[in-house]
Amino acid sequence: MTENREAAATYPLLMRIQEPDDVKKLSVTELEKLAAEIRQFMVDTVSQTGGHLAPSLGTVELTLALYSVYQFPQDKLVWDVGHQAYTHKILTGRRDRFSTLRQKGGITGFPNRAESPYDAFGVGHASTAISAALGMAVSRDLHGRSNKVVAVLGDGAFTGGMAFEALNHAGDLHTDLTVILNDNGRSIDKNVGAMSEYLSRIRVDPQYAKAKQDVHEFLDSIPHFGSRVLRTASIIKDSVRSALVPGDVFEELGFHYIGPIDGHNIGLLQEILSKARNMQGPVLIHVRTKKGKGYAPAEQAPGKFHGIGTFDPETGECGKKAGAPSYTSVFGQTMLDLAEKDPLLLAITAAMPAGTGLMPFKERYPKRYFDVGIAEEHAVTLAAGMAADGCHPVVAIYSTFAQRAFDQLEHDVCLQNLPVTLCLDRAGLVGADGPTHHGVFDLSYLRMMPNMTIFAPKDEEELRHMVWTAVHTNGPTAVRYPRGAGLGVPLTDTYLDIPIGKAEVLRQGGKIALLAVGSMVDKVQKAADILAEEGITCTVVNMRFVKPLDRDLLLALAGEMELFVTLEENALAGGFGSAVAEFLADEDLAVPLVRFGIPDHFIEQGSPDELLALCGLQPEQIAARIRQRVAGMKDDRHAKDKKKKKD
Amino acid sequence: MTENREAAATYPLLMRIQEPDDVKKLSVTELEKLAAEIRQFMVDTVSQTGGHLAPSLGTVELTLALYSVYQFPQDKLVWDVGHQAYTHKILTGRRDRFSTLRQKGGITGFPNRAESPYDAFGVGHASTAISAALGMAVSRDLHGRSNKVVAVLGDGAFTGGMAFEALNHAGDLHTDLTVILNDNGRSIDKNVGAMSEYLSRIRVDPQYAKAKQDVHEFLDSIPHFGSRVLRTASIIKDSVRSALVPGDVFEELGFHYIGPIDGHNIGLLQEILSKARNMQGPVLIHVRTKKGKGYAPAEQAPGKFHGIGTFDPETGECGKKAGAPSYTSVFGQTMLDLAEKDPLLLAITAAMPAGTGLMPFKERYPKRYFDVGIAEEHAVTLAAGMAADGCHPVVAIYSTFAQRAFDQLEHDVCLQNLPVTLCLDRAGLVGADGPTHHGVFDLSYLRMMPNMTIFAPKDEEELRHMVWTAVHTNGPTAVRYPRGAGLGVPLTDTYLDIPIGKAEVLRQGGKIALLAVGSMVDKVQKAADILAEEGITCTVVNMRFVKPLDRDLLLALAGEMELFVTLEENALAGGFGSAVAEFLADEDLAVPLVRFGIPDHFIEQGSPDELLALCGLQPEQIAARIRQRVAGMKDDRHAKDKKKKKD
Repeated sequence: MTENREAAATYPLLMRIQEPDDVKKLSVTELEKLAAEIRQFMVDTVSQTGGHLAPSLGTVELTLALYSVYQFPQDKLVWDVGHQAYTHKILTGRRDRFSTLRQKGGITGFPNRAESPYDAFGVGHASTAISAALGMAVSRDLHGRSNKVVAVLGDGAFTGGMAFEALNHAGDLHTDLTVILNDNGRSIDKNVGAMSEYLSRIRVDPQYAKAKQDVHEFLDSIPHFGSRVLRTASIIKDSVRSALVPGDVFEELGFHYIGPIDGHNIGLLQEILSKARNMQGPVLIHVRTKKGKGYAPAEQAPGKFHGIGTFDPETGECGKKAGAPSYTSVFGQTMLDLAEKDPLLLAITAAMPAGTGLMPFKERYPKRYFDVGIAEEHAVTLAAGMAADGCHPVVAIYSTFAQRAFDQLEHDVCLQNLPVTLCLDRAGLVGADGPTHHGVFDLSYLRMMPNMTIFAPKDEEELRHMVWTAVHTNGPTAVRYPRGAGLGVPLTDTYLDIPIGKAEVLRQGGKIALLAVGSMVDKVQKAADILAEEGITCTVVNMRFVKPLDRDLLLALAGEMELFVTLEENALAGGFGSAVAEFLADEDLAVPLVRFGIPDHFIEQGSPDELLALCGLQPEQIAARIRQRVAGMKDDRHAKDKKKKKD
Repeated sequence: MTENREAAATYPLLMRIQEPDDVKKLSVTELEKLAAEIRQFMVDTVSQTGGHLAPSLGTVELTLALYSVYQFPQDKLVWDVGHQAYTHKILTGRRDRFSTLRQKGGITGFPNRAESPYDAFGVGHASTAISAALGMAVSRDLHGRSNKVVAVLGDGAFTGGMAFEALNHAGDLHTDLTVILNDNGRSIDKNVGAMSEYLSRIRVDPQYAKAKQDVHEFLDSIPHFGSRVLRTASIIKDSVRSALVPGDVFEELGFHYIGPIDGHNIGLLQEILSKARNMQGPVLIHVRTKKGKGYAPAEQAPGKFHGIGTFDPETGECGKKAGAPSYTSVFGQTMLDLAEKDPLLLAITAAMPAGTGLMPFKERYPKRYFDVGIAEEHAVTLAAGMAADGCHPVVAIYSTFAQRAFDQLEHDVCLQNLPVTLCLDRAGLVGADGPTHHGVFDLSYLRMMPNMTIFAPKDEEELRHMVWTAVHTNGPTAVRYPRGAGLGVPLTDTYLDIPIGKAEVLRQGGKIALLAVGSMVDKVQKAADILAEEGITCTVVNMRFVKPLDRDLLLALAGEMELFVTLEENALAGGFGSAVAEFLADEDLAVPLVRFGIPDHFIEQGSPDELLALCGLQPEQIAARIRQRVAGMKDDRHAKDKKKKKD
């Protein structure tokens, strides 16, 4: 009760919102106060939980205006990516559970159909919103309903090709659809590309809107000319009309363009949205917002506050993480070292220079650094073109986002056997971002591609040598490594060639071979320690490569071992353990196999440790399952021995 | 010799071309004659071999102009998709082998780096050319070279998102790059989308070019006004300048736009290309061509002549194929039947209405039919949006092109468990189109996705029931079926529910279980016949589902059988056989397993029968390998028996 009273004192308007329609009763002045309370509430909460603060701070007024004009959930609201949707969550019955944000069992960081009827579409990867919203608009027409459909996308999402595919289709279909371009000039980092420049030109020229009105007067004032010039003048009028509406590109694609509009002016937003709500056909509203708006530390460092851990709400200072350097930063340093030695080494990122660790590379080698926008398809084929012409490009993408380039990896890179190196950060379970962001399919989707070599380092030092080796391999290579801190092992300053397809035996003995990949090497070492204390000796192998497999080692082990155990932070379907199962079958080796990995369902959000436990991948769990299996084997042998005696 | 003399008489200019630079010695009049000869040569040859005739007929003059202006292969030429590149192939040393087009061991239907240094980049899937060319331009700059890079794309390829991603990046980078938009108003069928409409507007208004000149005069003639109007006038001048250059969308994206230009006027093309060759930064040349140009039957039916089998060069009549209806047409009929029963059933194609069999649906149900352009990513997420709103969309795509939507299938469809049905035509080895088009990864890439159900029919009748069942399944489903004719089985007129995850046992007995998927069911039946004659009895199972597996049946069979054999027209890595290997390992079942499928390298072009033979998937080959394995098993048993006796 005290807590509630405290909350009511701190956020008086916000705590009175019982359902989203309550915002319709508030005046603009009250909505402005509510916006300030929501910002305070978000900063207070996210400073404790971590989350996507800066994007959501930028859309408070926009969200309030949307809810004061539209009838959600009858009308449909699709947020692109969804990290700007905290106000939406807070308004739609999730305020009181907001402190569970991104935690196991808590509310999710992104819109999620399972969580609320107001979350019309689940999101996480960029640039999907127009497609999904257009599908809902088509469905509405087919059902004979009259509800509205609104998609909200950042300008970063407009660099993704599928947003363009959807615009192109929507502009052609001409059904009612409202696309809101939430333009803050940024993806996670500064936005890139010609489209971004184009939006800047619209943004910075306040004369455009004024000019539009003047032009009509001006054109009407033109004296009469001969017939050819008259005809020309008519063409000019049309052209000028379209040219002086900023947003001609969108107009040419069949959208009615409105903007640019101050995205922090609630009254203006209400007016424009009300107008748009009654318009026919596809409408694009260009709204200018400030990422991090209203919270000084986030306004000053919107990149840092895009997705952030816990921090001090007063100062914006993050809790210092002491300890081992992250895989990301070790990769970044490795790229610097490699670039110094090889003038033909190039680095490509898809709008994630900081997230992938390429910021130092960008600063040191700006001409060899390419941020292509949220455009993974282009990133990979661009790399293929570079490689076809003699360069060695490294494409650094998060594992989950590289899924966007599956076809380009197969068709443009592997089929042509080109030396492109893919560095997959955030491979495995990523934690709080949840199922849209877990990178648990890469071993499976890369393994089926002929010519591909897949590396997985056991620690951050091995990552260095693997990136080095991959870049010096004449063919497609992928290195996948987990999110977060390394193991804290010592880092050397030389680079070693790792023999392709050769595993590393870490300990020998016993009748059980523990075959682990990447992050699971450390876990299985600990499991082996537990088992060793119980007298169960295991051979432990750091496989290093998922493709090609170390067939010689596996053949040798098959001759000695009574059990193979595979361990990976990847889907069991088609992953590393699957490759070993195939190998055993193809070689007609009757070695029993136990496979550890991600089961065949989507894994929720939570801390990495919680999620590993959920999948049975913690050392104690690994040890327990092996212990049980060994007991079963002994029983079997006992039974067989008995049977033999009887025979 | 007689043959050569005949060829020299029929194609006098063409037969004198020894190397591509020879075209530089020819006058425009001679090049026009050469163009006519090349067309005749293409029609004569492709009528015998089959191939992509209409696209290549449209680019004869463009290719000749390119070779008369540029210095290939020092300059780089990237054809998008590549089915318009026959003139390029004929000019670059492949004229005399052109009759081997698309045949096993012959020249390939698409540009191919392994085949010629003039083929700067291997292609097949649409919309990759700008990305690859930009990579080569970046590489040129880094190497300090001065060669030019040219990408040629159809207007259809511009509907693909990655083309936009690449334009967006190229317009920003500002390095020298020439993009030629080969605009014939079509993809394979008629082109769609707002971009296409935009190009039409540019195309149909000849006044644009004229107006441009007039405008400058007109603007200069405007009398003086006050300062506010003057400022406005200055804005207008800029706006008009950009608006009256048709192609403002491309200009806004940072490209210098030239066009539209008659793509069959060699002299004009030479002039424009020479000019473009000396321009700085990214240039887009908009060339208008006619698909099928110069061959009346192809001009009249460019869709039919896009990719065609053998035909009579005089009349354009195709060799009539008697026999069984194609899987494609049976699917098309099924969609009609389903749509009649279910008003919420929708059909989506990515620029392949004829290829996927949806033409009858398009005609009967135009409001429930959606051609999204070459935009597979959007197609799948559009479907997810429709499904989220209560409709049941069916997305019909070729297996190989669905790779483009891997992420959307995982992230938008499966994660949300939405009832979207994917119908994958051309699954398996497709024949003459070769490795860019084989659909041999779908079972692997779909199998790793939680919630997905994968159907594979053994014949065209089962396809009907599977599409019916998939559409009535509450979750993501995929039905995959091969290219070409069905088996000729009787077609019923009712639809049956196929129990999800239940296989069909076709014959029982013996100690060998032959577990086959889709197209391999027929092959393995024939193999079983061969083996039966030799006294080797087999159990034959039509698995029907790759996911979920029929675990009950497999468990039961594991108790009875001494050998499992899996057969699939899909990659062995991660496919159906891999799923069975996983199952046996996870259930700790020591049943030996032999896996038939596509090995871990890319499969060349050839007839489907040749390619199946290459992979050991013909009935005789299957029988032989099983026979051998059975013999080995007997030896083993014999040895064991002996050993036992000794013991």
